[in-house]
Amino acid sequence: MSGFKLSICQVAVGRDKKDNIGRAREAVNRAAGEGAKMVVLPEMFNCPFKAELFPEYAESFEDGETTAMLKDAARENNIYLVGGSIPEREGQQVYNSSFIFGPGGDLLGCHRKMHLFDVDLPGGPSVRESSTLGRGEDLTFINTELCRFGVAICFDVRFPELMRALALSGARLIVIPAAFNTTSGPAHWEITMRARAVDNQVYIAAASPARGREPGYVVYGHSTIVEPWGQVLVEAGEGEEIITAEIDLDHVEKVRREIPLLDLRRSDLYDLKWKK
Amino acid sequence: MSGFKLSICQVAVGRDKKDNIGRAREAVNRAAGEGAKMVVLPEMFNCPFKAELFPEYAESFEDGETTAMLKDAARENNIYLVGGSIPEREGQQVYNSSFIFGPGGDLLGCHRKMHLFDVDLPGGPSVRESSTLGRGEDLTFINTELCRFGVAICFDVRFPELMRALALSGARLIVIPAAFNTTSGPAHWEITMRARAVDNQVYIAAASPARGREPGYVVYGHSTIVEPWGQVLVEAGEGEEIITAEIDLDHVEKVRREIPLLDLRRSDLYDLKWKK
Repeated sequence: MSGFKLSICQVAVGRDKKDNIGRAREAVNRAAGEGAKMVVLPEMFNCPFKAELFPEYAESFEDGETTAMLKDAARENNIYLVGGSIPEREGQQVYNSSFIFGPGGDLLGCHRKMHLFDVDLPGGPSVRESSTLGRGEDLTFINTELCRFGVAICFDVRFPELMRALALSGARLIVIPAAFNTTSGPAHWEITMRARAVDNQVYIAAASPARGREPGYVVYGHSTIVEPWGQVLVEAGEGEEIITAEIDLDHVEKVRREIPLLDLRRSDLYDLKWKK
Repeated sequence: MSGFKLSICQVAVGRDKKDNIGRAREAVNRAAGEGAKMVVLPEMFNCPFKAELFPEYAESFEDGETTAMLKDAARENNIYLVGGSIPEREGQQVYNSSFIFGPGGDLLGCHRKMHLFDVDLPGGPSVRESSTLGRGEDLTFINTELCRFGVAICFDVRFPELMRALALSGARLIVIPAAFNTTSGPAHWEITMRARAVDNQVYIAAASPARGREPGYVVYGHSTIVEPWGQVLVEAGEGEEIITAEIDLDHVEKVRREIPLLDLRRSDLYDLKWKK
């Protein structure tokens, strides 16, 4: 199989956790009903994007209502489901975590956000994710019959090292649940996603929540799917929306033949070393 | 001193080497006359961009007419001059080399293109730089009273590893003589230059020759100066043009305080290792 339909569900996120979960489930069902074989939810789709709320909304994988919904939604729809991200509790620690399920409802992997968002944006929000979250330590690759793909969460995408490591490990697609804001979004969302696709000759699927209405951290929206030559295949607006594009693995190979960027790296001169 | 004017001379390049050198010299004089403290010439500004012509136009640093012009132009105008690039002969080998001169006419450094352009572009040119050129092996940093800057040539910019290494070594500006073509240019020139600026929180000064009229490899033009937040400060069109912008080092520090990307790298997890 050389291609498949991927959908991103740009759902709205509010204060009511059950409502957030229900809205996400409904969107996943709809995307799958329209033919998507892989469906992606946004970063923190069950919780407002406020560091101080993450512990309150957190749940453990084993007995969480959100992870239970994701597992069911994957199985019942017979799809690969990248469950955006949620606040995950493990012991005393909370993580920003993406659970990925296969068509049988089996857990294929979990990415914990590796680079936490600690910034003071000019005329925008100050955020200190590290005040309530622990840092992930691992690269996340998923092997499926559709393709090998990597998962990274939001601020992770700012770091070319991580994106490169995913591509060098064989990813043809990098899925990025992400919630840029209305300062960083207009400035950096599109060029970052497109440049990662171009540099690493992969598809990028970046899934944002819909724009919120509460003051504070206002999410940008504009979920997007970019192909390996850097063209935006589809981009959402600000509201709730499902966007879909075909992931064509033959196209990845074609682009990689035309400009063999990964082969033309000077690996005789430099090396990206991972310490674990 | 926290700022200075940088100019890029987007000169045309033809078959006549003396004419190319004269045109470059005139443009440098004009840019300096208008207040530039650093002037940048394009990639292969004394030679058409055809791999098979590089050996014919090549000269050694010691007795080259182009390097002599660059030295004089820097001294007489009292400027820093990044001499785009030229085919440089050393022994039996030819390199795509950028010579950088200080206001006293002293040679401050030389960057030899590290990543050679060997590609088959769809509906565009096939190029095999490696058929006539040797590969550079070294990162190039220049320390001046204006700022610390790095130099890379064209295809080098495609590799985030090299750009990252320059930023981590303290560069606040990366100068990139480059000749993208009319296939890769519209697709990748702007997003690549902007993303490098955003990721590494540096100024990028990318200097292209003016668009050529000969068939074969048609240069894109569009020389550009991008600030560390990713905004294009100035961009040339296709023809001969001098573009100028202020390089503001305080602005670099401001952007780095707002989103401390270089500090937030997970250097506990990964490391970009250079083998020499």
